Amino acid sequence: MKQIVECIPNFSEGKDKIIIQKIADSAKEFDVKLLDTEWNESHNRSLMTIVGSPEEVFKASFAMIKTATQLIDMTKHKGEHPRIGATDVVPFVPVSGVSIEECVQLSKKLGQKVATELNIPVYLYEESAQREDRKNLADVRRGEYEGLKEEIKTNPDKKPDYGPKEFHPTAGAVVIGARKYLIAFNVNLDTKDIEIGKKIAGIVREKDGGLPGVKALGFDVDGYAQVSMNLVDYHKTNIDKAFEEVKKGAEKLGVKVKNSEIYGMIPLEALTMAVGNTIKADGFKMDQVLEKKLYE
Amino acid sequence: MKQIVECIPNFSEGKDKIIIQKIADSAKEFDVKLLDTEWNESHNRSLMTIVGSPEEVFKASFAMIKTATQLIDMTKHKGEHPRIGATDVVPFVPVSGVSIEECVQLSKKLGQKVATELNIPVYLYEESAQREDRKNLADVRRGEYEGLKEEIKTNPDKKPDYGPKEFHPTAGAVVIGARKYLIAFNVNLDTKDIEIGKKIAGIVREKDGGLPGVKALGFDVDGYAQVSMNLVDYHKTNIDKAFEEVKKGAEKLGVKVKNSEIYGMIPLEALTMAVGNTIKADGFKMDQVLEKKLYE
Repeated sequence: MKQIVECIPNFSEGKDKIIIQKIADSAKEFDVKLLDTEWNESHNRSLMTIVGSPEEVFKASFAMIKTATQLIDMTKHKGEHPRIGATDVVPFVPVSGVSIEECVQLSKKLGQKVATELNIPVYLYEESAQREDRKNLADVRRGEYEGLKEEIKTNPDKKPDYGPKEFHPTAGAVVIGARKYLIAFNVNLDTKDIEIGKKIAGIVREKDGGLPGVKALGFDVDGYAQVSMNLVDYHKTNIDKAFEEVKKGAEKLGVKVKNSEIYGMIPLEALTMAVGNTIKADGFKMDQVLEKKLYE
Repeated sequence: MKQIVECIPNFSEGKDKIIIQKIADSAKEFDVKLLDTEWNESHNRSLMTIVGSPEEVFKASFAMIKTATQLIDMTKHKGEHPRIGATDVVPFVPVSGVSIEECVQLSKKLGQKVATELNIPVYLYEESAQREDRKNLADVRRGEYEGLKEEIKTNPDKKPDYGPKEFHPTAGAVVIGARKYLIAFNVNLDTKDIEIGKKIAGIVREKDGGLPGVKALGFDVDGYAQVSMNLVDYHKTNIDKAFEEVKKGAEKLGVKVKNSEIYGMIPLEALTMAVGNTIKADGFKMDQVLEKKLYE
């Protein structure tokens, strides 16, 4: 498999394990790997992570949405987490051999199919957004199921990107889009002065003139300062560069780096790029990783 | 698949593509991946690289040896490369989740099976060697097919580790063993002074008091100095450390590193360890690499 896409559909069911299982099972007839299923009862929400080729992930995600449409009734849904539909949000994420543009295309194709075949209004968000005010998920979801259900009929501003100008009777609406892979990366400093961590976070975060694609906060973790980062575009700033900058910032303040942690999963491409950059191996490619051959 | 072993059996056939294909095909009924088949006509020799779980690689390698035993006649074999049998040498190499000790066990198990079921004398070499003078393949193979065929009968020193004290009439003998994964790694220097490359090779190579598990030579590549290394034990010295030492040596001589190249394949574990070390992510594990999930 040369091209790998990840998809993490979120469903408005976090209590009934049979329904959650049935949604997850819908993916099984396709050549995708279900990496993870998580649910939260008070949120009354679940999310599933599937990976595979763009085509198979496309088919599996549609099958899951179809099952959720059949089994979840939004007119009776209660939960703490904001939501507008049975399938609430479906992000596609490039993992390897796939561009963000291809994921945008995939999300649009899925949006059209969901609108046409399931008769559900679809909003495109993040990289797939057709309007600036739909890039941010919170903006798209404002009013939630109960509010949007009425507003969509009367407010032209709420017209969906695909599908009817009316909520599906039980499934509501769905938000679909593409976003880049996010790497959660923390660097722990050898100081109990939490302000130093906050200061360095301020230096590295993009918003304040730091590294592109880096969000950062300073935290107190077990009494020590931590710079906690989200790398939202590892093609711009990868783990090696983020580490280097935090280290440089710490050294200027007379503080050492204790260690770092990559939280959760990381695509092989990010790893390959980090190593290639560190040892100046410009030509080093993922295809040289022996294990990659095992799934191709 | 948690455990991955590589096996690279070498066969004394480098001309007849049908025989080479039939040997390769023997691996197909097992759950292994044939990564590569190479042959050389003047050597009259071929080698095949298979990877998979220890159990499947064991079965596939035996099937290949059996086919080679049936199809290759050593009494008629001519070739430039030293060899003692139809299947000449079979190394097992740990790739991930497997220790070198487990590969030694695998090689012994295969040796016993080959001896018992195919009636071929087996010599254990490298990490599997039972005697110091059988560690080195060249030593085991001395005399080659024609010489050893006679010597095995009379010289007690040539008694095989398993099997008969007599060559198989057409397949001769076979050398089996385990060795660690070898990473071929070159660092190119920004100098036309080839002697500087040789000097740095002398600094980093284990034999002359350098880094453990590093073999190194200085070469002239396109008019520039290159330090060409074999990292024979990346648990001792990995690419990041080797790069760092060459860079340090170069800087002392007032020379910069142009770039580096990883030649051929590298196990995911080596990559993960290199990244983890560079960014001090002590807890970083292969299991966090997303693609790894695709072949498990």
